[in-house]
Amino acid sequence: MALINENFLKLQGSYLFSDIAKRVNSFKVTHPKDKVIRMGIGDVTQPLPPAVIEAMHRAVDEMGNKDSFHGYGPEQGYPFLIDAVIKNDYISRGVTLDSNEVFISDGAKSDCGNMGDLLRHDNSIGVTDPVYPVYLDSNVMSGRTGDLEDGRWSDVVYIPCTSANGFVPELPSRRVDIIYLCYPNNPTGTTLSKDELKKWVNYALANDAIIMYDSAYEAYIQDPAIPHSIYEIKGAKKVAIEFRSFSKTAGFTGVRCGYTVVPKELNAFTLDGERVALNRYWNRRQCTKYNGTSYISQRAAEAIYSPEGKRQVKETIGYYMTNATLLKEGLTECGLQVFGGVNAPYLWVKSPDGISSWKFFDRLLYEVNIVGTPGVGFGPSGEGYLRLTAFGDRDDTLEAVARLKKWLT
Amino acid sequence: MALINENFLKLQGSYLFSDIAKRVNSFKVTHPKDKVIRMGIGDVTQPLPPAVIEAMHRAVDEMGNKDSFHGYGPEQGYPFLIDAVIKNDYISRGVTLDSNEVFISDGAKSDCGNMGDLLRHDNSIGVTDPVYPVYLDSNVMSGRTGDLEDGRWSDVVYIPCTSANGFVPELPSRRVDIIYLCYPNNPTGTTLSKDELKKWVNYALANDAIIMYDSAYEAYIQDPAIPHSIYEIKGAKKVAIEFRSFSKTAGFTGVRCGYTVVPKELNAFTLDGERVALNRYWNRRQCTKYNGTSYISQRAAEAIYSPEGKRQVKETIGYYMTNATLLKEGLTECGLQVFGGVNAPYLWVKSPDGISSWKFFDRLLYEVNIVGTPGVGFGPSGEGYLRLTAFGDRDDTLEAVARLKKWLT
Repeated sequence: MALINENFLKLQGSYLFSDIAKRVNSFKVTHPKDKVIRMGIGDVTQPLPPAVIEAMHRAVDEMGNKDSFHGYGPEQGYPFLIDAVIKNDYISRGVTLDSNEVFISDGAKSDCGNMGDLLRHDNSIGVTDPVYPVYLDSNVMSGRTGDLEDGRWSDVVYIPCTSANGFVPELPSRRVDIIYLCYPNNPTGTTLSKDELKKWVNYALANDAIIMYDSAYEAYIQDPAIPHSIYEIKGAKKVAIEFRSFSKTAGFTGVRCGYTVVPKELNAFTLDGERVALNRYWNRRQCTKYNGTSYISQRAAEAIYSPEGKRQVKETIGYYMTNATLLKEGLTECGLQVFGGVNAPYLWVKSPDGISSWKFFDRLLYEVNIVGTPGVGFGPSGEGYLRLTAFGDRDDTLEAVARLKKWLT
Repeated sequence: MALINENFLKLQGSYLFSDIAKRVNSFKVTHPKDKVIRMGIGDVTQPLPPAVIEAMHRAVDEMGNKDSFHGYGPEQGYPFLIDAVIKNDYISRGVTLDSNEVFISDGAKSDCGNMGDLLRHDNSIGVTDPVYPVYLDSNVMSGRTGDLEDGRWSDVVYIPCTSANGFVPELPSRRVDIIYLCYPNNPTGTTLSKDELKKWVNYALANDAIIMYDSAYEAYIQDPAIPHSIYEIKGAKKVAIEFRSFSKTAGFTGVRCGYTVVPKELNAFTLDGERVALNRYWNRRQCTKYNGTSYISQRAAEAIYSPEGKRQVKETIGYYMTNATLLKEGLTECGLQVFGGVNAPYLWVKSPDGISSWKFFDRLLYEVNIVGTPGVGFGPSGEGYLRLTAFGDRDDTLEAVARLKKWLT
């Protein structure tokens, strides 16, 4: 009799974004003429940069010709892309990496989820709260979270990030073996300084813990003092795995390409306390359960590192960050308290008059026809907040600001 | 202290194909002038069909234009591709499927490996022997295989497929909860008739077992009596998950697209014996740990179902199957015993004079400069066989046959 992994049965039936979609749909049925502005889901809207389009056309042509056809590529990714990543994303910031420490993938979500394969089911985990749901749900599947009680998993250490502590997570009160950090943060749009991040690296070093560092939004950092990679912190290669994605950097949400860095210095431990380097086991996992990233997607990613690719990517990010600035200024003028939106495409807005996240969501939807994401959907400490994204069109962003001003002032 | 999943430590250090690569490289160092013909790894060599190339160029152009840009797609795949799959691969063979029973992915290897997430670590597994290594290695990682003793995993039920039983696997002598079947078979190139497959479906129905059915090579079937899908067998939807790939069907090894069918009727069981449909949990798994397949790859896959795409795909498969016929005839004329190669791109060649797989491999490499894959690399019952693939160029195939004839006759 084939037995199910009963951890899956603990998962909540519905998912934040489908709940939102249902509410939006019922609004649209009752208000068919109102124009809804969607600032909820974090997907990009601008087309791919011309340099990427050209590179993909070239790669497609290669695939149509016997002499330049590419079949199975390396599971770890092509050297041309790994080299470009190391040179542009790391050496440029004083970080050296070996080519076999970088694994090209189809995106950070897959790797964040699948990395848990390598670790025992009874490691304790810590997350900042609010948090990207994938970190928790993938650990539910692996049996690391305990049971859900009042919106909290019993075995998870939640580290609150709210306006009360300036969104800077304090070190956990009880031991955690695996810590998920995402900076620039989804959903709050806040960042950590080098000193704040160093505190975490030192904690992991002292406790033989592993940091799962998701820096999918690093391209949005404007302040030169803010670290783009956790490896800018001394000692981090011993304790941190870094997840990166081209999704938000260059609009690759539909193209599917990202990468993960597993330094060779990074260890986990056997029950006997023996150190084991995870690099070769991630390689083994990928060679067994993954078959490489599309050649065309990898050529597309390589193109963002060309001079014209860099310029075009910067321009698109500038477009989104101008949206973020317009939103932040507009909302602040309305008297709302707004966090994030300076080094990240997300704005974390405090609900007015202390109303709940869902109440704020409903009022925005019904009174000004704007869709946000209720903060409580990202965890208990998200209650009383709402996330807005800067990925929309400029015109929509301007109209959203105008509607909000009319509504609130 | 972060603890490693110690099951990973059980994995063998090196992998069959890297062992082969090492031997070939050392041959090339000592014999730099000899032309080696590679018939080992199962990768395609012919370019993508023109219909696919055109579809990809169109999709790339869409991504460069704001009004036709595609960001995140459905994790399950786009309806245009799911509909084409159901219509062309299933309805055409009398099988009806709902659109939410088909999950588009980046390839069968990922899905075969990841499907294990859904099932308890202590299910017993059965494999035909010889076998595609991914089924075993992914189960090693999940802790289902026990320990490796003399090339066999202690908790795995091996079901021998050799010339002695005509490569038809007998029902297992002890209970298995999960059975891996791959037909047309990799590595033996043999197939199962409807009656033989029915025996397995009935076994699974009687024992509440699950069949992981890998039909990545179904496009190579020439005999109209051989089933392409396990769902052609009555009752199979209750017990079988089917993995398909465009890799070998249409040369997508570098494009990355496949799909998996998880019927809604299919159940696993809780420890209390309660039935749980796996469909929604695979959906949940994919939504959490996967972010959809490249839009461009999905448009490429859709194109193989157009009238010209079908014609072009058939032509390429015809090319490879002509290679298979030439190889099979040539080897047979040399007095070798050859299996497969009629409804599959693989030929399973019995070693002459009862020599071992590796001895046969070395002799082929050193005496006629042809690279095969030693059968024992696929499991204990592969000893005394060698796998050759028909994916090469026609000229190379003809030259290989000529060399073999000169050598053996």
